[in-house]
Amino acid sequence: MAHPRLSLNQATIKHAPLEAALDRTRAAGIESIGLWREPVAEVGLARAARLLADSGLRFSSLCRGGFFTVADAAERRRSIDANRRAIEETGVLAGAGAPGSAAVLVLVAGGLPEGSRDLIGARARVRDALGELEPQARASGVTLAIEALHPMYASDRAVVSTLGQALDLAQPFPASSVGVVVDTFHIWWDPDVLTSIARAGAEGRIASYQVCDWATPLPADVLLARHYPGDGVIDFGSLTAAVEATGYTGDIEVELFNEQIWADDWAAVAARTASAFDAAVAPHLGARVPV
Amino acid sequence: MAHPRLSLNQATIKHAPLEAALDRTRAAGIESIGLWREPVAEVGLARAARLLADSGLRFSSLCRGGFFTVADAAERRRSIDANRRAIEETGVLAGAGAPGSAAVLVLVAGGLPEGSRDLIGARARVRDALGELEPQARASGVTLAIEALHPMYASDRAVVSTLGQALDLAQPFPASSVGVVVDTFHIWWDPDVLTSIARAGAEGRIASYQVCDWATPLPADVLLARHYPGDGVIDFGSLTAAVEATGYTGDIEVELFNEQIWADDWAAVAARTASAFDAAVAPHLGARVPV
Repeated sequence: MAHPRLSLNQATIKHAPLEAALDRTRAAGIESIGLWREPVAEVGLARAARLLADSGLRFSSLCRGGFFTVADAAERRRSIDANRRAIEETGVLAGAGAPGSAAVLVLVAGGLPEGSRDLIGARARVRDALGELEPQARASGVTLAIEALHPMYASDRAVVSTLGQALDLAQPFPASSVGVVVDTFHIWWDPDVLTSIARAGAEGRIASYQVCDWATPLPADVLLARHYPGDGVIDFGSLTAAVEATGYTGDIEVELFNEQIWADDWAAVAARTASAFDAAVAPHLGARVPV
Repeated sequence: MAHPRLSLNQATIKHAPLEAALDRTRAAGIESIGLWREPVAEVGLARAARLLADSGLRFSSLCRGGFFTVADAAERRRSIDANRRAIEETGVLAGAGAPGSAAVLVLVAGGLPEGSRDLIGARARVRDALGELEPQARASGVTLAIEALHPMYASDRAVVSTLGQALDLAQPFPASSVGVVVDTFHIWWDPDVLTSIARAGAEGRIASYQVCDWATPLPADVLLARHYPGDGVIDFGSLTAAVEATGYTGDIEVELFNEQIWADDWAAVAARTASAFDAAVAPHLGARVPV
């Protein structure tokens, strides 16, 4: 059996349709899964919810909302509308997952609009979008989880680059409706990472803890640079201990963007994820189990 | 003529020997140059100093010392010794440059040692090395300039990743002997960048201001991702205004690591650097000139 707090993020077996992803996750003895909107949409939300319920797996998060930085008004409206649908989907899927599921929607802020150098303006639009969406999240019992992405993605993917910045963005809102993702790959380098994790815990904002590893040289497409925990240089001991110390008892996701892993057999990837987690992360977890 | 505060960092015309680098810099109407240890060593320090003096150019910095994170005792000793020689060279070259030259040695911290995950330990060794070298720097009138590198280099190049962290490392020492480099490429994404620049100024620590641009997609070798100012997404207006507001009146270096630029004609690169600087940076500079 896999560690009871491990959740396989579906992106790790990106090419698996939903039904196969659920099957391989359960077959590997993993109890929880993080889903992506596209494979859910492929089968339709209602059927996705039934498949999830039938699998007996917990649901740990939906990827992803966000992309708030566009400047064009019509495009911005479409982005907000897409996020409204994503909030609904999150609520439905969390309700269909096994007890202990988390109604968490992961938000990737978005990069600089084409041709723009206005980083401060882009960040302001993220703040504004959160204000627009938070009432619906609150009413739906969904937590919007702001994910800081590594600074190498600041121009074209996410203008939120540190955990501290994500917490500042969350500040105006209740922790139940706006939280943060703690993702080792994105924040391991941050000199303030341990204090930011402690702050996130003290503010009750840790909506998701995600573990994957960093190694160099980076691949040609730096979006696909993630490795199994233990295959790189990240110290999962200090980071996991810091998250544990906050009292976080939720699922811990492994989300790997990596061409080699994507090309591998899905069952093998699920099994390897479970064993990597056991070796690199589990030793740093206390006896707590998800409630 | 180029802007009077522009300095061409020799790495921008990496394949030019020292004499050619000095010649092309002066021919482009640029008044100042930042040198690298290797091309200086090729001709010998004494001859390098004579060539520099004969050129009439100011000297704005020497690249580079650092690489302090090695754990092996003998290797560490060699690294410290190399830095001692670099401090001496900086003093000699600053003395040979035209009035307004800066005795600045740029320090790149070094990455994680092979096989290590101990980022905190590596950072502690940087702090210790500064303590070991600072007395010599002070006695020689040289400023050790800690350069924060982009977090994508944290594992294999520099465990100092933010300007704030560089300032914390400098804190125990007088500002005349330990300062920081403000390099737009490395810190533009930082949500705290403007406050960190203001802090650097208030503490009198800005030893060098370097400008180059960020654009995506990144090249396969992410070390070579730097662009002429104006060719990417960095807002040189807000960053340069923040540096100007501190009262910094020193040279401003353009240092480009880029295979295409390296393959180009040296004179053309020097001229293009001057025009890019005029267009993207100069409009944000006050009337001050170096003293």
